[in-house]
Amino acid sequence: MAVYTNVSAEDLDVFLTHYDVGSALSFKGIAEGVENSNFLLKTTRGSYILTLYEKRVSEGDLPFFLALMEHLAEHHVTCPIPIKGRDGALHRTLNGRAAALISFLDGVSVQHPTIDHCRALGGALAELHVGAAGFEGQRKNGLGQKDWRGLFKKSKARADEVSRGLGSIIETELTKLDTIWPSYLPTGIIHGDLFPDNVFFIGNRLSGFIDFYFACNDMLAYDLAVCLNAWCFDDDQRFHPDQARAMISAYSQVRPFSELELDALPLLCRGAALRFLLTRLYDWLHHPDGALVAPKNPLDFLKRLQFHQSVRGPADYGLSA
Amino acid sequence: MAVYTNVSAEDLDVFLTHYDVGSALSFKGIAEGVENSNFLLKTTRGSYILTLYEKRVSEGDLPFFLALMEHLAEHHVTCPIPIKGRDGALHRTLNGRAAALISFLDGVSVQHPTIDHCRALGGALAELHVGAAGFEGQRKNGLGQKDWRGLFKKSKARADEVSRGLGSIIETELTKLDTIWPSYLPTGIIHGDLFPDNVFFIGNRLSGFIDFYFACNDMLAYDLAVCLNAWCFDDDQRFHPDQARAMISAYSQVRPFSELELDALPLLCRGAALRFLLTRLYDWLHHPDGALVAPKNPLDFLKRLQFHQSVRGPADYGLSA
Repeated sequence: MAVYTNVSAEDLDVFLTHYDVGSALSFKGIAEGVENSNFLLKTTRGSYILTLYEKRVSEGDLPFFLALMEHLAEHHVTCPIPIKGRDGALHRTLNGRAAALISFLDGVSVQHPTIDHCRALGGALAELHVGAAGFEGQRKNGLGQKDWRGLFKKSKARADEVSRGLGSIIETELTKLDTIWPSYLPTGIIHGDLFPDNVFFIGNRLSGFIDFYFACNDMLAYDLAVCLNAWCFDDDQRFHPDQARAMISAYSQVRPFSELELDALPLLCRGAALRFLLTRLYDWLHHPDGALVAPKNPLDFLKRLQFHQSVRGPADYGLSA
Repeated sequence: MAVYTNVSAEDLDVFLTHYDVGSALSFKGIAEGVENSNFLLKTTRGSYILTLYEKRVSEGDLPFFLALMEHLAEHHVTCPIPIKGRDGALHRTLNGRAAALISFLDGVSVQHPTIDHCRALGGALAELHVGAAGFEGQRKNGLGQKDWRGLFKKSKARADEVSRGLGSIIETELTKLDTIWPSYLPTGIIHGDLFPDNVFFIGNRLSGFIDFYFACNDMLAYDLAVCLNAWCFDDDQRFHPDQARAMISAYSQVRPFSELELDALPLLCRGAALRFLLTRLYDWLHHPDGALVAPKNPLDFLKRLQFHQSVRGPADYGLSA
């Protein structure tokens, strides 16, 4: 939620000479996307987002992300469309950062999703999975199950500063998931970070997805497990089965959700909760003093993890096979 | 350059019921205005800025600022226009802050002003001064010459942490200005903070002024002295007389600049440099760890002050009576 790299009007004018988008009428840094610097650009031809990729997005991954957005847009999944430069390139360098110009997407992020929002999300997520099926790009999940232990190592020594016993809870869960993490579920392209910030609505209509910079190949049901964690708990960390039911039911109508996937859901939800617990714990312990972004409390995801650990089967999510 | 107060889509929907501006299509926190939280709102009817006033803007002053913007817009000075609620009110409360909806203004701030930008600014500033002449509101300059000693008191003990000898340089200047600060020059409404961030251009054409939250009654020539400080020094703190000449010459063509004002200019420039040195020094010493906004280096204005102290008369600014 910040602008890390400054772009002056003069820098912008030079950058825009590489594109056929008209000249700048307005240019404002926006508080969107935790990882990158984003600017809203209005030109004589339309509205765009200029993104400068900061350290967490590797330049080597950009062709995958941008081509995926292009592919999805061609397959009727509403998302920002990367704008090609006059030379055909989808990204170039600006002020020492890789930078891309993408189309502006109408819509507003909701903070407290309702059943209607969850239903719309479920259907659109399945459309995303189906629409991405023909995409040829491949990217390993850099924050997948096999990476969690390595991630934890960087925070382990100080985990108990955040909450007494946290280190041992995580250690036990990592060991458990090592033995029971599924490997037999259908895979494909997942968004990987579908929190409400990354989904736009106009009223109750879902108008599009943004921020594909965690997209990768992984189990499709894991994407839904991320959404259950991100959309179906309230601010007091209470789970709302009616929202989960609406989401999964809408998903299944577009892409049938197998019994195997349903049975694995509690496990996938534990994994997804652990993944965000680990990245938030890392950010919490490692953010520099004076950081532009206030880190989010990792303990929200400890509570969600503990809920999933207590679940006996899909029925506890309000679901049935 | 930040969003201090969060506004959810749900909060926004409730807020918009008080206005006749259509429904939200897009809503983004923007990095504009150091003092307040600003959001760019696109609705089915147009584009707007929603501002939530943080602690530095007193709610008691808001009617003055908003009425001034209305008055200026009616007198052909391009600036954001406050949007009235259905009840006629120009501001109301949102998430514990006073909040106003204002019209969106096209234009981009320049970081390195050219002679053309300075010329356009001079003419538009004079139009602002002339256009505000009939405005009935009054507001004392809260950061005027009489306030500088009190402001310095809050930083004095630690001034030399920033630069050795800084405290005594400021002390000497305060004493000097106490005795020679002019009181006989024409007064009126000044903007008071016309840094390049607060002026929009489309190409070389000045498209409008923003951020009137330091506007007050003071000497008109003092506003020009602020601009000379803010627009006519480069990043190495070198003064550019050609830019100053273009600015003042364009100003004089709209509102004749008297010989008295010209003679007082070096003094007013010293005062303006000191005012920004003092507020930046305060921010530098008092910003909390983890603050969203990186404070600006106060020493830039020490160098500008020292330049003005070395000046013998208007000729050193490239000007003649």
